[in-house]
Amino acid sequence: MKWEGNEYVVDVEVEAIHRRPGFAADIHDQKADSRERGSAFCLVDGPADSTNAMKPSAPKIALHQANPLIADVVGAMRSIRTAAVQAAAAGATLMVCPELAAIGGYPPRDLLERRYLVEAQWQAVNELAKDLPLPVVLGCVEPLEPGLGPDIANAVAVLDGGQVTATYHKRLLPTYDVFDERRYFRPGMTPAVVTIAGLRVGLTVCEDIWNEAFVGGSLGLGLRYHQDPVGDLAGQCDLIVNCSASPYHLGKSATRRRVVGAAARRARCPIAYANQVGGQDELLFDGDSGVALTDGRWLAGLGRWQEGVAIIDLAGTPQVEFPQPVEADLHAALVAGIRDYCRKTGQTKVVLGLSGGIDSALVAALAVDALGPDAVTGLLMPGPYSSAGSVNDAVALAEALGLRHHILGISEANRLMLGTLEPVFVGTPFGLAEENLQSRLRGVLVMAVANKLGAMALTTGNKSELATGYCTIYGDMNGGLAPIGDLYKTRIWALSRHLNAVAGRERIPVASIDKAPSAELRENQTDQDSLPPYDELDRILTGFLEAGLSPDELITRGEDPATVRRIIRLVEVTEFKRRQSAPVLRVSTKAFGVGRRIPIARKF
Amino acid sequence: MKWEGNEYVVDVEVEAIHRRPGFAADIHDQKADSRERGSAFCLVDGPADSTNAMKPSAPKIALHQANPLIADVVGAMRSIRTAAVQAAAAGATLMVCPELAAIGGYPPRDLLERRYLVEAQWQAVNELAKDLPLPVVLGCVEPLEPGLGPDIANAVAVLDGGQVTATYHKRLLPTYDVFDERRYFRPGMTPAVVTIAGLRVGLTVCEDIWNEAFVGGSLGLGLRYHQDPVGDLAGQCDLIVNCSASPYHLGKSATRRRVVGAAARRARCPIAYANQVGGQDELLFDGDSGVALTDGRWLAGLGRWQEGVAIIDLAGTPQVEFPQPVEADLHAALVAGIRDYCRKTGQTKVVLGLSGGIDSALVAALAVDALGPDAVTGLLMPGPYSSAGSVNDAVALAEALGLRHHILGISEANRLMLGTLEPVFVGTPFGLAEENLQSRLRGVLVMAVANKLGAMALTTGNKSELATGYCTIYGDMNGGLAPIGDLYKTRIWALSRHLNAVAGRERIPVASIDKAPSAELRENQTDQDSLPPYDELDRILTGFLEAGLSPDELITRGEDPATVRRIIRLVEVTEFKRRQSAPVLRVSTKAFGVGRRIPIARKF
Repeated sequence: MKWEGNEYVVDVEVEAIHRRPGFAADIHDQKADSRERGSAFCLVDGPADSTNAMKPSAPKIALHQANPLIADVVGAMRSIRTAAVQAAAAGATLMVCPELAAIGGYPPRDLLERRYLVEAQWQAVNELAKDLPLPVVLGCVEPLEPGLGPDIANAVAVLDGGQVTATYHKRLLPTYDVFDERRYFRPGMTPAVVTIAGLRVGLTVCEDIWNEAFVGGSLGLGLRYHQDPVGDLAGQCDLIVNCSASPYHLGKSATRRRVVGAAARRARCPIAYANQVGGQDELLFDGDSGVALTDGRWLAGLGRWQEGVAIIDLAGTPQVEFPQPVEADLHAALVAGIRDYCRKTGQTKVVLGLSGGIDSALVAALAVDALGPDAVTGLLMPGPYSSAGSVNDAVALAEALGLRHHILGISEANRLMLGTLEPVFVGTPFGLAEENLQSRLRGVLVMAVANKLGAMALTTGNKSELATGYCTIYGDMNGGLAPIGDLYKTRIWALSRHLNAVAGRERIPVASIDKAPSAELRENQTDQDSLPPYDELDRILTGFLEAGLSPDELITRGEDPATVRRIIRLVEVTEFKRRQSAPVLRVSTKAFGVGRRIPIARKF
Repeated sequence: MKWEGNEYVVDVEVEAIHRRPGFAADIHDQKADSRERGSAFCLVDGPADSTNAMKPSAPKIALHQANPLIADVVGAMRSIRTAAVQAAAAGATLMVCPELAAIGGYPPRDLLERRYLVEAQWQAVNELAKDLPLPVVLGCVEPLEPGLGPDIANAVAVLDGGQVTATYHKRLLPTYDVFDERRYFRPGMTPAVVTIAGLRVGLTVCEDIWNEAFVGGSLGLGLRYHQDPVGDLAGQCDLIVNCSASPYHLGKSATRRRVVGAAARRARCPIAYANQVGGQDELLFDGDSGVALTDGRWLAGLGRWQEGVAIIDLAGTPQVEFPQPVEADLHAALVAGIRDYCRKTGQTKVVLGLSGGIDSALVAALAVDALGPDAVTGLLMPGPYSSAGSVNDAVALAEALGLRHHILGISEANRLMLGTLEPVFVGTPFGLAEENLQSRLRGVLVMAVANKLGAMALTTGNKSELATGYCTIYGDMNGGLAPIGDLYKTRIWALSRHLNAVAGRERIPVASIDKAPSAELRENQTDQDSLPPYDELDRILTGFLEAGLSPDELITRGEDPATVRRIIRLVEVTEFKRRQSAPVLRVSTKAFGVGRRIPIARKF
């Protein structure tokens, strides 16, 4: 190992350590099987290097925790260059950027099929290389010669000494849950180690270090791949970089640190991990860039949900605790999601209906935290079955949050529409049509105000409702974003109490938290007329949706058979509503939306 | 080759011809490159066998052109068994079923992640084997031992002599457009030839015979794969079977016959091709099962869009012409799509708004053809800017089609809602908010009637509108299915004229076809106030969406630069609407929906 202080040295060579056919199962099966029997932390070959190798002349690594805009190549280049100048000034040896940073972040989805966009980005990367004050390892899309398979790679480029000196192609392409990388990318087949500033640097992209076959098989995430990018680099490098776009869900940070730490131990060198931050449609990225040392301990960067450049001294003090409590974490995630969705779609204002209930109260509070109270308009739309308490609670909420609100009743319009519908409705009893009508008239008002103000409507439905179809399509489902669509009702209550506790006051009226939930679409209605108690409902839904349990398994675990069957049937027959849902900010391992693909027409 | 007449013989052996690592590019690249230089029909090794080999004692092959229901394993088993009895009675040697037939057809999507469903299906396949009157080659999901990669295969099982005697795993897993097979399946690595009734039968599944690297590279469909399932079977078989679920688009049948024929020539044996038929959510399957003879000529089965069992005598007369004209083909496809979506989601009635315009008129006619006039309710909902002509045209349509209709005006409700909105709208000019309000009030009425009748709403938007966002979300976009959402406006006119020509009368009023399209949401409005002429618009959209042309390429082809930029920008900024669209019946190579995945938040 040779160090050159803070000077960076143009001294690059690409070493293709060895070639292996990628999916040759026969070669790797035995190896993988033998590894599976160990746990993640038993895979270190020999004792961990407790000196962490690089003291006292250890380098500083810059991690660009970027919050880019998909397809904004010009913006990405500007942001990377600014970050590089900052990193060089702080004495960093090299800077690592997230996965696909050059094309404006992850996931570009079918924009990757636009060859002209990919080529423009690639040209921009080559231009950028000419004007950088330190070596940069950059996630990008590399156009390949047309041939077998897709003709682009999910790549990292090494920008050093005025040019692109090496590229590496992601080998493990996730194609589960929200990921579709086999749709777009030709997989890489070979590892790459590049000498940068005297360091032997191994290149990896995100999933390359997540092969479950080598982290004990207990994550319940990702797949067991034939290739072993970490194993291939073991003992070959002074440092591994990992360009990531690793989406957030509750608990992800702890899992991630465990995985990156285990990989560092297996590879017997530190791993510099640069992750995207911010919201991109339904996906949230928490950042959390840092360095896992050879013994698996974690050197934290900027932390989570912040954009910027972290300069990490490899001789620094590892972080022992991971302090973020669940509700604070969720709050930060949802605020980032609302803020970025609005910013990245050009929205500056939002509108939502305030029912006096807890869901709309929580969404209003999150929107205020994301955009400020002046950007949020609440509509109180009492109807024939609204209680006086509901209007009072909604007014109290609007005042507590300092947001503009209007009271626009629907009773008159409801009466008139029922009159219009008389030729069809005559002689029929009050039912779902009449309930939905009220919700849809409110939906019309929300959209009318949104259109008039040039604002976006937010939906206020939670995951328990969305799962069971306890919501009105083209009514309360109207909106451009569903901020709490991945939170079960029980979580809504906890998060609301947390917000009040943090504020030390009733930002969300306690009355809204404590009262029995009701849609108030008929006389004396409560949610529990149609649904089991929320703790029971949410337990069944979590088991079915997140854990993938069958009805029989749920019953074996002690759930009531009739309730299980009824709830699962509700989930299955209401898929058509979710197909038309606004994007749901994803905070669980299995959210409704792009990561869950269920046919509508099917045997129930 | 040995024939046993119409008796089937239990005489099975699996021959693993040879093993190859699947993605070992280095092994196959050279071979693929040399093949690419030829065209599809130049790849035959030696002259085609003009005697077609099997006369005079050629066997009969039964092809089960099934229209199954996803996840309906019991129904699938019943249907397969009934078909097998029919096939045996007709003297067939063996029966071939479509891809994934055992689990209720294609695509089961994330239901494949339910292990309990997969296991139940596998058990049913093994039960079915015990009670069949002839050998059956059946598409199914085979559960695999947990290991590296996904733990199921897209398989074919040979059911013969009372048991499952062999299985084969699909080797080429499509992961583009509407396909996600890498998400679910572990790819097969080896070819399989099984002796069934004395015939050496090569097993393949759908994409296995679509490797573009070997069909001249000119299809513009699918991918160039490293593996060559057809080449591996060449000269090894008396017959290849292909279990397919090959979705329809305009022109697909001709492409398919070309591909299957080219594969038969390369393999030097006939290919028995069994395809699914009918609608499954947005996907349409046209069936068109048949046999490609060794010289590439086609023995047709039931034809298209029909469910049933085709018995094909390999000594029969090949079909020379492919006669279906475009409009008749489209009509059959859309009628099947509406009928099957309704049947498979349990709907028996539909409701739609009739504006007097051509789009709603065409959807009404298609719905009547799919479900009968008694199942269709039309709503005329004149508003403040509706012309008398529009109401008259809509009434004429309803009478010509014999469907029930109601006239439910929105002017009064519109006035009342504008009054309700006065606190927000005061002092602002008439604009988009006021236009959308009318569309949304109509949407409320359509949904209210749908809920009251227990019917499903159909949307009436076309692809030109959906592409440019010239439609109102939660207004005219309300509905469970978008039957003509993949048809450009110019196609709508042609199809409407075709329906009248076939009927020999004005099923669709000529006035609706001939008048200038208008949303009638403000005074004297026409579509061309906001959009270029439809022929120009549709040409630009086709180039951008289907052909994947860049703005520069469109301009180079002679399109007006300002119009190109304006239209593409409209497409890009309205993605949020399409994300919440009803499923669009897919009739083109690139429909809005599951096959086109574009981020909402992005640089425009």
